[in-house]
Amino acid sequence: MSAAAFLNDFHHVATIGATPNNGVDRQAATADDARTRNWFAEWVRRAGWELRVDGIGNMFGLLEWTPGAPFVVIGSHLDSQPLGGRFDGAYGVIAAMHAARSIDLEVAESGMAPRFNLAVVNWFNEEGGRFAPSIMGSSVFAGLLDREKMLAVTDLQGVSVREALDGIGYLGTAEGPELAGYAEIHIEQGRILEREGINIGLVDSSWYTQKLDIEVLGEQSHTGATAMADRHDALVAASKIILMVHDVTKDFAEEALVSSVGQLTLEPNSPIVVARRVHLVADLRSGDPEIVTAARAALLEQIDALAREHDIKVNVKDFDIRPIRRFPKAGLELSAKVAGKLGLSSRRIQTMAGHDSVAMNTVAPSVMLFIPSVDGVSHCEREFTTDDDMVTGLAMLTGVARELVSGALAGQERPTAELATAVAGAAGAMAGGAA
Amino acid sequence: MSAAAFLNDFHHVATIGATPNNGVDRQAATADDARTRNWFAEWVRRAGWELRVDGIGNMFGLLEWTPGAPFVVIGSHLDSQPLGGRFDGAYGVIAAMHAARSIDLEVAESGMAPRFNLAVVNWFNEEGGRFAPSIMGSSVFAGLLDREKMLAVTDLQGVSVREALDGIGYLGTAEGPELAGYAEIHIEQGRILEREGINIGLVDSSWYTQKLDIEVLGEQSHTGATAMADRHDALVAASKIILMVHDVTKDFAEEALVSSVGQLTLEPNSPIVVARRVHLVADLRSGDPEIVTAARAALLEQIDALAREHDIKVNVKDFDIRPIRRFPKAGLELSAKVAGKLGLSSRRIQTMAGHDSVAMNTVAPSVMLFIPSVDGVSHCEREFTTDDDMVTGLAMLTGVARELVSGALAGQERPTAELATAVAGAAGAMAGGAA
Repeated sequence: MSAAAFLNDFHHVATIGATPNNGVDRQAATADDARTRNWFAEWVRRAGWELRVDGIGNMFGLLEWTPGAPFVVIGSHLDSQPLGGRFDGAYGVIAAMHAARSIDLEVAESGMAPRFNLAVVNWFNEEGGRFAPSIMGSSVFAGLLDREKMLAVTDLQGVSVREALDGIGYLGTAEGPELAGYAEIHIEQGRILEREGINIGLVDSSWYTQKLDIEVLGEQSHTGATAMADRHDALVAASKIILMVHDVTKDFAEEALVSSVGQLTLEPNSPIVVARRVHLVADLRSGDPEIVTAARAALLEQIDALAREHDIKVNVKDFDIRPIRRFPKAGLELSAKVAGKLGLSSRRIQTMAGHDSVAMNTVAPSVMLFIPSVDGVSHCEREFTTDDDMVTGLAMLTGVARELVSGALAGQERPTAELATAVAGAAGAMAGGAA
Repeated sequence: MSAAAFLNDFHHVATIGATPNNGVDRQAATADDARTRNWFAEWVRRAGWELRVDGIGNMFGLLEWTPGAPFVVIGSHLDSQPLGGRFDGAYGVIAAMHAARSIDLEVAESGMAPRFNLAVVNWFNEEGGRFAPSIMGSSVFAGLLDREKMLAVTDLQGVSVREALDGIGYLGTAEGPELAGYAEIHIEQGRILEREGINIGLVDSSWYTQKLDIEVLGEQSHTGATAMADRHDALVAASKIILMVHDVTKDFAEEALVSSVGQLTLEPNSPIVVARRVHLVADLRSGDPEIVTAARAALLEQIDALAREHDIKVNVKDFDIRPIRRFPKAGLELSAKVAGKLGLSSRRIQTMAGHDSVAMNTVAPSVMLFIPSVDGVSHCEREFTTDDDMVTGLAMLTGVARELVSGALAGQERPTAELATAVAGAAGAMAGGAA
C-alpha cells in the first residue's frame, strides 16, 4: 500500500469540479461528475480489473480471483453537493480503490485466492442535490427503490436521470456483482472523533430521521399600500416556523437532536408583494426515535397556535421517515479487532447522516467506518480531514476488506430479523432521500 | 355617460387573464397583456380616435379637437401583478376611456373645442412583476428612465423588454402626445376611505419609500451531521431579520410605517443542506421621512448585533429611495370643487403605493384620485371595489378631465420648485421600481 499514491489520487480528484474555496461541485450526472467517472473507469482499466456500469449508473471495478464466487464490495460515491466538500464520498471511493489494489497485490504474491472476490464501487447520486431522493444508486442496487421510477426522476430543469446518465455515457447495461458483504469508509461529518482524539469510528447504527413538508398559506397583498394589520404575510409566519424548528432542539439534551430548514420557496417572490405561500422542508434527526417524536409533536402544537394567531393556514405532512438501522455486531467486533492490530484507537458511533452503507446493510452484512472531520463541518467547501487521518483510514479499510474477503462475516450473509424489519421500513422511507 | 357601458367593459376586461378566485394574471408583455392591449386598441379605433404606440409600449388614444394643441392625458395601466386583482390599474384605464367618450360627446354637442385636446393612456409595465423597475412606461415617457436601458431589461427567463414587446406587436414607433396635464383614478389599496365612508380620495402626496437589499452570508453544512452549535445557518439569521423588519413598525404610531420582506432567495436550497446565503429585499414606507430613517437605523443596529451573535456576515445596501412628492395644490382644490358639485364627499389622502401619476407629476400638473377598496387589500385576487364606487369615481374623473381640458390648471404647466427637486431625486430613485 502506497500512502503517497493514494494521496496523489485523492488530491487529483479534488481538482475535478473544484470551487474557489477548496470545495468541489460535482452534482450527479453533470459534466464534472462525468470527469470523475472517466477518471475512475480509466484507473480501473489500468489496474487490469473488469469495469461494469449498471442501469442506474453505479460503477464497479471487479477483481475476480475465484470465478463464480460472490463479491465483497467496498466504496462510496464521487458525486457532491453544490459547493460541497472534497472529502464527502470521494475519500471512500479512492480509499477503496487503493485498499483493493493492496489486497490484489497480496493475493498475487501469496498465490492463494481468498474465499470471496472483491469489487470497488462508485455509487450514483448519493447526495441527491440534483435528483431526489439521495442514496439513489445503492438503494436501487439493494432493491429498495425501483430503477425505472428513478430513471424517470427529473431535476429542476426537467432533465430526467435517464437522459442525464445517457448524456454523459453512463447509463450502463451490466448487472452489479453478486454480494458477499459491504464496507465503506467516510468522514465523520461531526466532531466526536476529533474531540476525543480517536482514530476510527465504528458505526453501530444510523439515526432516526424524518422530514416535515410545511406549506404556509397567507394572503398576497401590497407591501406598500396594505396596512400592517390587514396582512396575512406567509413569510412572517414561515420565519417563525423556521425559528421554532431551530429552537426545538433546546428542549432536549445538547446534541441529542438536530433540526433545521434547508429548502424554502416563496410565492410570488416579488419585492413589492406580501407573500401568499411559503413551502419549506424541515429535517429532524436523533439517535432516539422518541426525541424526534416529541420534537415533532411540540412543533405541530406550536405551528397550530401560530396559524390561529396569524389567521393563516399551515399544512404539515410527515415524509421520509427512516427508522434507526443497526449494523451487524460481528462486523463491529471484527473492525475493533482490526483497529487494535493496527494500533488505532476506535469507538462505536452513530451516523446522523445517511450513507450508501445504510442501504447496503439491508441486503448484506455491512461495515461502516468513520475518520475524523476537522471542526465537524461538511456539505461545505470548508470540510476538511488531514492526510494523516485519511492514510490511517485507508489502512483500516484495507484491514477490514482483507478480513471480509477471507469470509470473516460469512455466517452473516442475511440480515438479522431486526434488519429485515428495517428493510421493510426502508423501502418506503428511502423514497424521500436523506443523505 | 353610460354607467352600464362602463361596467360592461370593466367586467369584460376582468375576464382576460382571469384567475380561479376572481383575480387576473396579466404581467407586462405576456399573451394576456397583449389581449387587453388588443381590446384597448380596438375600442379606441371604434371610438374614432387616433391610436399611437410609443417606443416603450405605452398606448395612447388621441381625441384631437384642436389641431396642434397639447393634450390632457388620463389613464393608468392594464398590466397586473402575478395573481393580482382585477381593479388595480384596469379601473383607471377603463374609467378614462369612458370619461373621454363622455367629454367627446359633449364637445360634439356644444360644437366648441376646449383649450386642450384629450388622450387616454395605457402605460406599459406599471407593476414591475416581470420586468423591474415598475412604473416603467410612464417614467420613460416623463424622461425619468432611459428608453434604451429599459428595452434591454430582461425577465427571469432572459427575455428582454424589447423582445417581449416586439413579440406581442407593441413595440411602437410613434411619439406620445405633447402634455398639458395628467389625471388618474385608482383604487385606494388601503382602507381609509372605506373606514370613513368617503367617496373620493384626493391624493396630495406620495409616501417616502426606500428598500434595503440584505445579503445574509452563513456557512453551508449538513442538516443531519453538523452539530447545532457548529452551524452558521443563513436562513435562521434571515428569519430573524424578516421578523425585525416586520416588528419595527411597532416602534411607531399605528399605520405610520409599513415594512416587509416580499422577495427572498436561498442558496443552495437543498432539503439536507444548511443554507449558506439568503438574499432578501425589505420595503419601508411612511408619510414621514424621519420615520423611515429611524426605522432603517434601528434595523441596521439590530442586524449588526444579530450578525455578531450568529458569527455570520450581513451586507445591507440602501436602494430605490423615493422622496415624498406633492401633487399641485391647485389640482387638489379643483378636484374638491368638482366633488362638491357632484355631491360627493372627499378628503385629502397620501398614497403609500407608487403610481404612474407620481412620474407624470414631475413633468405636468397632475391630479390623482382614489376610490375605496373593500378591506383595503390589493395585489391579490381578493382585491375588491363595488360597482357603485367605480361609477361614482368615473363621474369624478370625467368632471376633473372636463376642467383640465378647459385649462383649469393651465397656469401650472411647469412643476413648482419643490417638484423640480423631486424630479432630480426621482431619476435615480425610480431605477429600483416600487409600485
